[in-house]
Amino acid sequence: MDIAGTADGDRFLVDFAALSAFGATPSGGVDRQAGTDADDAQRMWLIELLREQGAQVRIDAIGNVFGTWERVPGAPFIVVGSHLDSQPRAGRYDGAYGVLAGAHACFRVAERLDAEGVEPRFNFAVVDWFNEEGARFQPSMMGSAVYTEKLDLENALAAADRRGVTVRAALGSLRSSGDAEAPAAAGYVEIHVEQGRILESEGLTIGLVEATWASRKYRVNVIGEQSHTGSTPMSERRDALLGAARLIVGVRQIADDFGIHTSVSSIDIEPNSPVVVAREAELLVDMRAAENDVLAGAERALHLLFAEVAESTSVEVRQHLEHEWQVSPYQEEGVEYAERVARSLGLGHRRMMTIAGHDSTNMKDIVPSIMLFVPSVDGIAHNEGELTEDDDLVAGLRMLTEVLRGIVVGEFDLDTASRRAADRR
Amino acid sequence: MDIAGTADGDRFLVDFAALSAFGATPSGGVDRQAGTDADDAQRMWLIELLREQGAQVRIDAIGNVFGTWERVPGAPFIVVGSHLDSQPRAGRYDGAYGVLAGAHACFRVAERLDAEGVEPRFNFAVVDWFNEEGARFQPSMMGSAVYTEKLDLENALAAADRRGVTVRAALGSLRSSGDAEAPAAAGYVEIHVEQGRILESEGLTIGLVEATWASRKYRVNVIGEQSHTGSTPMSERRDALLGAARLIVGVRQIADDFGIHTSVSSIDIEPNSPVVVAREAELLVDMRAAENDVLAGAERALHLLFAEVAESTSVEVRQHLEHEWQVSPYQEEGVEYAERVARSLGLGHRRMMTIAGHDSTNMKDIVPSIMLFVPSVDGIAHNEGELTEDDDLVAGLRMLTEVLRGIVVGEFDLDTASRRAADRR
Repeated sequence: MDIAGTADGDRFLVDFAALSAFGATPSGGVDRQAGTDADDAQRMWLIELLREQGAQVRIDAIGNVFGTWERVPGAPFIVVGSHLDSQPRAGRYDGAYGVLAGAHACFRVAERLDAEGVEPRFNFAVVDWFNEEGARFQPSMMGSAVYTEKLDLENALAAADRRGVTVRAALGSLRSSGDAEAPAAAGYVEIHVEQGRILESEGLTIGLVEATWASRKYRVNVIGEQSHTGSTPMSERRDALLGAARLIVGVRQIADDFGIHTSVSSIDIEPNSPVVVAREAELLVDMRAAENDVLAGAERALHLLFAEVAESTSVEVRQHLEHEWQVSPYQEEGVEYAERVARSLGLGHRRMMTIAGHDSTNMKDIVPSIMLFVPSVDGIAHNEGELTEDDDLVAGLRMLTEVLRGIVVGEFDLDTASRRAADRR
Repeated sequence: MDIAGTADGDRFLVDFAALSAFGATPSGGVDRQAGTDADDAQRMWLIELLREQGAQVRIDAIGNVFGTWERVPGAPFIVVGSHLDSQPRAGRYDGAYGVLAGAHACFRVAERLDAEGVEPRFNFAVVDWFNEEGARFQPSMMGSAVYTEKLDLENALAAADRRGVTVRAALGSLRSSGDAEAPAAAGYVEIHVEQGRILESEGLTIGLVEATWASRKYRVNVIGEQSHTGSTPMSERRDALLGAARLIVGVRQIADDFGIHTSVSSIDIEPNSPVVVAREAELLVDMRAAENDVLAGAERALHLLFAEVAESTSVEVRQHLEHEWQVSPYQEEGVEYAERVARSLGLGHRRMMTIAGHDSTNMKDIVPSIMLFVPSVDGIAHNEGELTEDDDLVAGLRMLTEVLRGIVVGEFDLDTASRRAADRR
């Protein structure tokens, strides 16, 4: 194990291999959805690792796991991390890389503070945000949404999976649960795999995220009428699944017409019987764009589509806007600071946007936040074939460590960034 | 209770009201899928009713319940019946009417044989075929398929519902299960609600079914690739749900192009997560037509559609033909005989086809079988709003009783019909 050529890099890669064994799938991925046994097992492993390295561990009521280093009694924390939970049959880098890199960054910052005898300005902590993926429990980014008070704790705990198990019940069955107070953050840093091809195609190592794409998520219920698939005349059918299918095809067309990303990836129908025309279909429509006005146009087209399908299929289409995000910038000071760090480390870098949401999407709205990317081979994401090269993992860890250290010791003027962020709100 | 104006009609309607209470839904329908507690409860009720009326009860290994009247030791049976199981949130007439009318027809034939001192030629029996609907366990028409040796008993017992519960396990948990030998049939009669509007619109009471529509059922698996709904470029997606949606829309178009009935009413996708492009979708395509050559043309269009969708969506489409029925006639002698009976009773009647399959679809291939319909209000089927007027229920019972009595006492020359049927096979 010396692919990355440094002792620190080797330590990280050994730990990452150990982490990747939890919920491992035969095809090289992982399946460790939030609150499952596999999630609990990896969280217990992380907790042990953090304690071995001298961190205090706190788990809050929504299941966020924090490892804290309190070097300045009473001072706020610079928090670094991501999420360990995964999609079903997912890759092993998404989220998990950011948590483990965050932990190792904290280890190194602690070691260097000790070695150099520097007095830090802030405390620091690593976090595993609970249920970022939203595969089992909706909404996604649950842990960071509760932390940032965008989501009420009680509502989050009441969310149920398809089998009716609530977040409260799932957390209650975990060893890695608690009711500690979460540490107060003064800043946040997250590193994540890009899940796109930009860095790879340009031969760069670090992405500096300037903003998130705008997005809209709709829950759509298509209401038809149950009838016999054989005998009911075609003209009298009110087929909810046919209505849903026309919506799915239409939503894909909107992506082409507006040059944006759209998807429908979940559907539940009733009664889902081979010989009964479906009476109801529920689906989630996701639309994302790099520009607010383009997305607004696409949204108008979506509403026309709803009306068209209701008319052509004799169904009722009920829609509910579940999320609405405008293009949302990260603090410019943070991007500039990370740019300087990347330059000083000699890492090829560029500014970019993130299409996917991350926990930092929530955090940046309450504290200055920096979001970093490392390359994804072929841009593959939410798939067992997800890959980031070891050298990029280790380079990302170096970058994250330097960024964290600089803020903790006060090299990056967090106060100014904070004030600017506050002025914008 | 004298809507139908006869004591026999009243007895039937009282029992039908009692039967309709099992698995009753708030909207006036029933939900008693095969092998559930509600199904078991209604079967136990039927068994008690049959025993009170002097029948012997036998339950065979696939869960078919027979009530037998053996008046001619060793002679074969004329079997009359249908199925008690229902679709989810279904109407209370589909199948249940035929079983209870069959039971009451047997009661009356037994009474009349006793009263008239006539020596019957055949024994007679009523049957509740297990799992005709196929909502919970596939294939549908399971009990009659095993009885007619179209389906192997072991394969049927191994079929599992969506939760992995097998037919064997479900039957094992019922009070109404057994391993008796089923009675040997020499003929079969079934009465059912039409599930269409023809009788109602022509003001007729009895439909004489000449043949079943041709049908094809395909299980289709659309294989795509799991990826991130947000970040994956649209051009690189291999979206199984989009492929399935294009198939569903195309299958509906085939119905219009060929003037036939088509449907897709069940779909299961993996991983069915809001933020992961689906890697696989499984759906069932059902096509039915009154003419074999029209259906053959539609089938060619379906295969073109499979290829088109695979090409346009970058998915793989795997299809498996699960059922293939040609237009299939009932024995002409049986239709003519039933026609004479209807005329003698003064019941308005006509010949017609059945679009839906029934247990008689299986039975007619091994013994001469007669299939009768009574009107459905507005043609509503597989829906809680299903309705047949009491007068029609009672008229159907009269018709069924006369048809059964005539065969049992030898007025209808079953032998000739049997030989003709044998010659065609």
